[in-house]
Amino acid sequence: MAPMTTTGEQMHALVERLYPLCRSITGDGVRDTLEIVGEYLPLQTHEVPTGTRVLDWTVPQEWNIRDAYIADTAGNRVVDFAASSLHVLGYSVPVSATMPLSELRAHLHTLPDHPTWVPYRTSYYKPDWGFCLAQETLDALPDGDYEVRVDSTLADGHLTYAEHVVPGQVPDEVIVSCHVCHPSLANDNLAGIAVATFLARALAETKPWYTYRFLFAPGTIGAITWLARNRERVDRVKHGLVLACAGDPGRLTYKQSRRGDAEIDRVMRHVLRSSERPHHITEFTPYGYDERQFCSPGFDLGVGSLSRTPYAGYPEYHTSADNPDFVSPEAMADTLAVCREAFGVLDRDRRYRNLSPYGEPQLGRRGLYEALGGRSDAKQAQMAMLWVLNLSDGEHSLLDIAERSGLPFDTVAGAADALEGAGLIKA
Amino acid sequence: MAPMTTTGEQMHALVERLYPLCRSITGDGVRDTLEIVGEYLPLQTHEVPTGTRVLDWTVPQEWNIRDAYIADTAGNRVVDFAASSLHVLGYSVPVSATMPLSELRAHLHTLPDHPTWVPYRTSYYKPDWGFCLAQETLDALPDGDYEVRVDSTLADGHLTYAEHVVPGQVPDEVIVSCHVCHPSLANDNLAGIAVATFLARALAETKPWYTYRFLFAPGTIGAITWLARNRERVDRVKHGLVLACAGDPGRLTYKQSRRGDAEIDRVMRHVLRSSERPHHITEFTPYGYDERQFCSPGFDLGVGSLSRTPYAGYPEYHTSADNPDFVSPEAMADTLAVCREAFGVLDRDRRYRNLSPYGEPQLGRRGLYEALGGRSDAKQAQMAMLWVLNLSDGEHSLLDIAERSGLPFDTVAGAADALEGAGLIKA
Amino acid sequence: MAPMTTTGEQMHALVERLYPLCRSITGDGVRDTLEIVGEYLPLQTHEVPTGTRVLDWTVPQEWNIRDAYIADTAGNRVVDFAASSLHVLGYSVPVSATMPLSELRAHLHTLPDHPTWVPYRTSYYKPDWGFCLAQETLDALPDGDYEVRVDSTLADGHLTYAEHVVPGQVPDEVIVSCHVCHPSLANDNLAGIAVATFLARALAETKPWYTYRFLFAPGTIGAITWLARNRERVDRVKHGLVLACAGDPGRLTYKQSRRGDAEIDRVMRHVLRSSERPHHITEFTPYGYDERQFCSPGFDLGVGSLSRTPYAGYPEYHTSADNPDFVSPEAMADTLAVCREAFGVLDRDRRYRNLSPYGEPQLGRRGLYEALGGRSDAKQAQMAMLWVLNLSDGEHSLLDIAERSGLPFDTVAGAADALEGAGLIKA
Ligand SMILES: [Zn+2]
Ligand SMILES: [Zn+2]
Ligand SMILES: [Zn+2]
Repeated sequence: MAPMTTTGEQMHALVERLYPLCRSITGDGVRDTLEIVGEYLPLQTHEVPTGTRVLDWTVPQEWNIRDAYIADTAGNRVVDFAASSLHVLGYSVPVSATMPLSELRAHLHTLPDHPTWVPYRTSYYKPDWGFCLAQETLDALPDGDYEVRVDSTLADGHLTYAEHVVPGQVPDEVIVSCHVCHPSLANDNLAGIAVATFLARALAETKPWYTYRFLFAPGTIGAITWLARNRERVDRVKHGLVLACAGDPGRLTYKQSRRGDAEIDRVMRHVLRSSERPHHITEFTPYGYDERQFCSPGFDLGVGSLSRTPYAGYPEYHTSADNPDFVSPEAMADTLAVCREAFGVLDRDRRYRNLSPYGEPQLGRRGLYEALGGRSDAKQAQMAMLWVLNLSDGEHSLLDIAERSGLPFDTVAGAADALEGAGLIKA
Repeated sequence: MAPMTTTGEQMHALVERLYPLCRSITGDGVRDTLEIVGEYLPLQTHEVPTGTRVLDWTVPQEWNIRDAYIADTAGNRVVDFAASSLHVLGYSVPVSATMPLSELRAHLHTLPDHPTWVPYRTSYYKPDWGFCLAQETLDALPDGDYEVRVDSTLADGHLTYAEHVVPGQVPDEVIVSCHVCHPSLANDNLAGIAVATFLARALAETKPWYTYRFLFAPGTIGAITWLARNRERVDRVKHGLVLACAGDPGRLTYKQSRRGDAEIDRVMRHVLRSSERPHHITEFTPYGYDERQFCSPGFDLGVGSLSRTPYAGYPEYHTSADNPDFVSPEAMADTLAVCREAFGVLDRDRRYRNLSPYGEPQLGRRGLYEALGGRSDAKQAQMAMLWVLNLSDGEHSLLDIAERSGLPFDTVAGAADALEGAGLIKA
Repeated sequence: MAPMTTTGEQMHALVERLYPLCRSITGDGVRDTLEIVGEYLPLQTHEVPTGTRVLDWTVPQEWNIRDAYIADTAGNRVVDFAASSLHVLGYSVPVSATMPLSELRAHLHTLPDHPTWVPYRTSYYKPDWGFCLAQETLDALPDGDYEVRVDSTLADGHLTYAEHVVPGQVPDEVIVSCHVCHPSLANDNLAGIAVATFLARALAETKPWYTYRFLFAPGTIGAITWLARNRERVDRVKHGLVLACAGDPGRLTYKQSRRGDAEIDRVMRHVLRSSERPHHITEFTPYGYDERQFCSPGFDLGVGSLSRTPYAGYPEYHTSADNPDFVSPEAMADTLAVCREAFGVLDRDRRYRNLSPYGEPQLGRRGLYEALGGRSDAKQAQMAMLWVLNLSDGEHSLLDIAERSGLPFDTVAGAADALEGAGLIKA
């Protein structure tokens, strides 16, 4: 019998599986990634041809790479793509040349402050080639000639992204998005992919109210492509969450939507506050992940972003130190738990109308007090009924009532269930 | 010649007179109470028959009680209603039986944490009988048989409440409500009755702007009955105050209306703040006294609640320790003073329109500066004129102006009088 | 060659030149003042006849004075108008008499707390005569008869004020006002006149967006006269600033307009805050300088008031100690700098509309990133572009964007220029 594994461990195993692949904004690395995710979750994969106009952008050529290295005159590979997909500048054009180190230096990227780490660099829209390596590797290179080779192709092809939909009781949608364009980096994006994957699986079991759409797409151009191809669907997107940096040891950070008072913002603030986790709420800024696109002024969707330590907030960001050891099963499980709790609130939040709004209705006659008998939270549950009755004027939602009363959302929602059952309120 | 007594002392005397009566939500105890209050204030008393539908409720049977006791086998009354109306569970059904202490215990209510105090308990809507006694009395009872007798009647009758109206210059009403359903408890409700009574007397001498309606009614069912029978009048109720716990030694507490920014809320906050009394302002909650009914979402009246220490906030609450010694003439006089001051502001608050709104009118030419000559507050009074002129745009009331300027309300109102007299502003 | 002088020194020289003149709300002192200012700035001078109705007021008789003194029996002038224009009560009626000191005292004004200072007093609308002198001068006067003489005229004439207009690209106006009615007082009004004068000169060099109207007028009656004669123009006045007490050593104080959220209020708060100067922001009060008139409820213009230490906030206020030594070139230069910075923001503030609001436009393709190459603030400038794009929805102005992003206004405005140049946004 297989040993029991926690969801956190399963997410970490997924991160480890995806880690070696060389992802970019297009190419087979993305396809291979989506194929592996597809083993956990049925995915609808889309291939969008190079040259397709998407909003203000154009789908670029597809980039694929087989091999890349710097070799010394003895033929020893001193920098080798086979060892880490980070070693090559993303979207490097092919090159095959021999040149002295002095000339090669202009194409080498290092992190002098972290001499053992390899940086992550790309040049998507300006043709270039280059290698990323540890500063100490560079320092050890003797002067002289080196063979450089990037065996890549940049050619018309496709941009690839995938969707998974958890059907809901209403066509209104919640979008959950994560980027799939980073090569061997664990927190900055694999943890987000893993949490999104297991979140989708968990939601499927709850028969949710909303339809939940999960989007696995390359950053920026992927979200732009999805938005361009779903202009008519965007009106249905009522809420959303961009997941990134979901597995590092830092506290959770929720970045609010551009609106700042979207329901997802209020739900996330409520859940993080009432969970008593250490956390951080930040204002929207037009920088970061794909909330930039969802919150562009033409769309202005109620989409926030959940991460642990936000991008660029940890030294390992965009370096080889962001490896599977940097993310933990516990941290990913914690991120997942908050997502589930938040979507639980979002999914249950509703406005009711008190059908007996003149004076208090007589609860005792309807057995609503007795039904609380023996419950340890009977007093709270009774207060919740009074609060729901008092504020169910069509303007206050259950979340409003929870916040104003200071009662747990679940207690308030339970009171609403009881009152609806007794015919006293109506959604 | 009778010795001079203060209003505080007169209120305390009224509390002492009312204290022994056995009040409940119906019955002769309420009638006797209203008869005594009627000696101070002409009351219009209403009798509403059992079975009358009032909003979601039905007027219950009337409860009256002549005698109740527990007697030992020697015939000694070990618990005796004649000693305190608290000894019997409110709305006890009749009983006449002999039973061992072991069986009787299920009908006995004590306060183990306060072994010398008798609790106050009721069972209005679930037929039951019982006795309330001190824990130390119970502890002293030997095992054995006891005679228990409750000589009460539960029969079709009436619910009784009373009104007193202080006529105003406009039909818009201010409602002042207090509950008259508690038996021998001084702070929780007799102090409120006393303050309401003397407040009505004081208002009658001021020729008030608003019509002030005082309601003396049993809690919950009384307010609901009044609301049910005055559906068309409710629209006239512009402001209101529920008085309770008006005589204990604690600081004043004002609980805001459901709206939170009703004029009564703003007036009470202003008066309490500017009086520099220690005080406490709390948010509305759908629990407490009859603000629950006035602030139900269908009515949503601007009705707040004034008390000293709020219900359940003092250990004597709903026990025999809430006796006339617990309330003082000084505390009741203080509550009364704040009510009078607040209604003074409420009654005088008005929006004016500056009839000369372009530039400042020339006050000197109209003798408005000279009129201030010799007044010690001449500078404040002049500033008040400038403030009233500047903010009398039909949107700001005198209270707004007092709050924004930081000037005393009376100074602002005096400036408005002077300016209106000079024809510069108009209500 | 003349030695170089700073603008601060030039403003101080203007204060010194204007200082000896005996200004009042009418008369030749005002005309002489405007003539001197006219050497720096072309002025349009207006003469409004005595008796003209202006709003609720009437233009008073014109007051002129040639001489005034108190002489002892030996003919020695113990108080002499020739020594300081403060010595005579403003608007003194003529007098020529001999009287004992005991009788004269009723017409003498001193400052017992500052025995060497001469107070400033007026009696515009109540006919009176009087002298202002140092307490120590009064104390030294022996009893006996004195000759008193005020050689003044009160006669039909004119009220004089002047305007200077810096033409803008739009007819919408910004009004800058200072009072010219105080005699030999430096901070309380000459510093304001000097700063206004050099502000107008500086603005003329900037080809401003708004039309800037500078008003040099006696306090109260002057502003009222201007408003009365420009009723149709008032709708064009979008913003304004009253300058007073502009040269003392205290920190800057901005008093907000009656509206409190007028654009001038937001601009001044932003500029003072981001300049990191010590400063003070105060609420509007209907007292002070001519913001009282501009912010009367009928006009309610977005006019604030900038001063250093506000009126009556310094002991030298309205005394002979408010002389040219009390104001410094540096303080006036600082006031001027803040005005220029604030009008720079006000003038440049605009709402734009993102013409590519769905998703982010591709900035790289348009060379907008490269244009930042080499700039030390390239990162800030790039963030500013993203912010301008994100918030240019027709609702947020550049100032809103600067405040929300925390970026310097100039960086935000520069980003807007670049984006407008690229055709991505439109005003
Ligand atoms: Zn990244
Ligand atoms: Zn009670
Ligand atoms: Zn002055």
